Amino acid sequence: MKPVQLAIVGLGKIARDQHLPAIAASAGFELAAIASRNASLPGIASFNSLDDMLEQAPDVQAVALCTPPQGRHLLAAQALRAGKHVLLEKPPGATVAEIAPLQALAIENGVSLFTTWHSRHAAAVEPARQVLARAKISSAHVAWKEDVRQWHPGQQWIWEPGGLGVFDPGINALSILTRILPQALFLDQAVLQFPSNRDTPIAATMRFQDGNGLAVTVDLDWRQLGPQIWHIVLETDLGEVRVDEGGKILQVAGQTQVADVDAEYAGIYAHFAELIRRGESDVDLTPLVHVADAFLIGRRETVEPFEDAV
Amino acid sequence: MKPVQLAIVGLGKIARDQHLPAIAASAGFELAAIASRNASLPGIASFNSLDDMLEQAPDVQAVALCTPPQGRHLLAAQALRAGKHVLLEKPPGATVAEIAPLQALAIENGVSLFTTWHSRHAAAVEPARQVLARAKISSAHVAWKEDVRQWHPGQQWIWEPGGLGVFDPGINALSILTRILPQALFLDQAVLQFPSNRDTPIAATMRFQDGNGLAVTVDLDWRQLGPQIWHIVLETDLGEVRVDEGGKILQVAGQTQVADVDAEYAGIYAHFAELIRRGESDVDLTPLVHVADAFLIGRRETVEPFEDAV
Repeated sequence: MKPVQLAIVGLGKIARDQHLPAIAASAGFELAAIASRNASLPGIASFNSLDDMLEQAPDVQAVALCTPPQGRHLLAAQALRAGKHVLLEKPPGATVAEIAPLQALAIENGVSLFTTWHSRHAAAVEPARQVLARAKISSAHVAWKEDVRQWHPGQQWIWEPGGLGVFDPGINALSILTRILPQALFLDQAVLQFPSNRDTPIAATMRFQDGNGLAVTVDLDWRQLGPQIWHIVLETDLGEVRVDEGGKILQVAGQTQVADVDAEYAGIYAHFAELIRRGESDVDLTPLVHVADAFLIGRRETVEPFEDAV
Repeated sequence: MKPVQLAIVGLGKIARDQHLPAIAASAGFELAAIASRNASLPGIASFNSLDDMLEQAPDVQAVALCTPPQGRHLLAAQALRAGKHVLLEKPPGATVAEIAPLQALAIENGVSLFTTWHSRHAAAVEPARQVLARAKISSAHVAWKEDVRQWHPGQQWIWEPGGLGVFDPGINALSILTRILPQALFLDQAVLQFPSNRDTPIAATMRFQDGNGLAVTVDLDWRQLGPQIWHIVLETDLGEVRVDEGGKILQVAGQTQVADVDAEYAGIYAHFAELIRRGESDVDLTPLVHVADAFLIGRRETVEPFEDAV
């Protein structure tokens, strides 16, 4: 089958670090164009805007939107109306409400819409889901603690309203959690810590329940120096189930069952190709809904100011 | 048809002011019981908890949950599991995510779940919807400005995290707006003003769009002295369409088309009876999603402290 002609919109850090290598390795896609305000790729048709690309590169069949979530809706709507399949980086939008109209546009134009959650494609996630489907879970704890200066150097949009702050990595944890647990969760309580000079939180705690007695705690922190922590630990009747390193490692009762290299974006593009082939969409807003709920009911605390340069 | 035996859970201000008279006037329902921590009604079986009521008043077929949104989920789940039809006062829950599991429980137990938005039953709302369905709308503005001391005297939960603050009345405006407009909206920008001593906003502005060039502005304020303002004004090709007095009055191009007395809770109970008769649920979270989105992307400002007593 001929590879799908794909364009990247927004050639920033995530596009260069993850999308370009995954597309290059994918049999299903061929990189046909770039639309980015200030960046281009040698040998690839590059445009300053999505508008220009849609007009001048009619062979493009699908676009991967890698711009920040604020303002992404209009680009997605434009691409869908032009009959392109659309892949949305996470989070799929700045708001929950903006996604339903995109779903409607995808149906109207007969194309696929894919709200990606890259961490769900990490190697340990599907095996963990299968283990937990047959376990009795008595508690779950998520710790996602990283150094924002290391992982988001100089990125201003994460600190602007709608930029999510520590929920930008935290939503990855929630995307795994909501995939591996058999039951739905909802938020009971949250505390959000905002640096006094910033509009998004630098740390947060969340307490979820499932309405049946299971409590799930989530601890997010962007001020972590030294070892970086991205794990989900569940107490079950099969022993401790531990999803570690952001979804790469699975341990059950102390035994390592999966320890793989990074395969997240390969998984995303394989799934996107499959969706296009089947004429389907894959739209799941659950992680974003949980974050919106945290902002909705969370208690706000003000903490010390944050400066990018130490 | 025999009236449905109904219980009220949470005999507070809204239950006494609105639900009791509407139930008394309704042919479809008979008040059979009260479950409320500190209140009872002469001549009506009264219980200290929903637990006690479910155990001791098996004839109750439906419950109206009039407790504050925080903690309402567990009561609703309990009632649904006991096979009762459930009516939820607005907002339907403290979080967006908690409602889907209730929908599942309603289906599982073969009962009706109704997330009410009382303002949608105001007399001018359905006529306004019909006018706007055939109009070209060029702008819409919502102003919802009232004196919190007059309308929420001494209510502490509205100031606690999850209590919504000025969005408690503001969500009524959003419930009307999202009913009368033909198209879906999503939030572009919001500013939330928090009193320095409170956990919820006392004022907010929102700017929505529909992805097709329509801008909708919403102005919420709980510090309004003098005349109270609850109106939605739309510029259209049919002239100005004005929904005033919280949905009671409709004016089109200066002509008053509807000016009715309060009929909101009568409408709610008529619809609830119809849902039960048909074996259906009516669950719409759109207004709550917009409020969650406002907390998610809104810029926070701190304003002067608020004290209940002037």
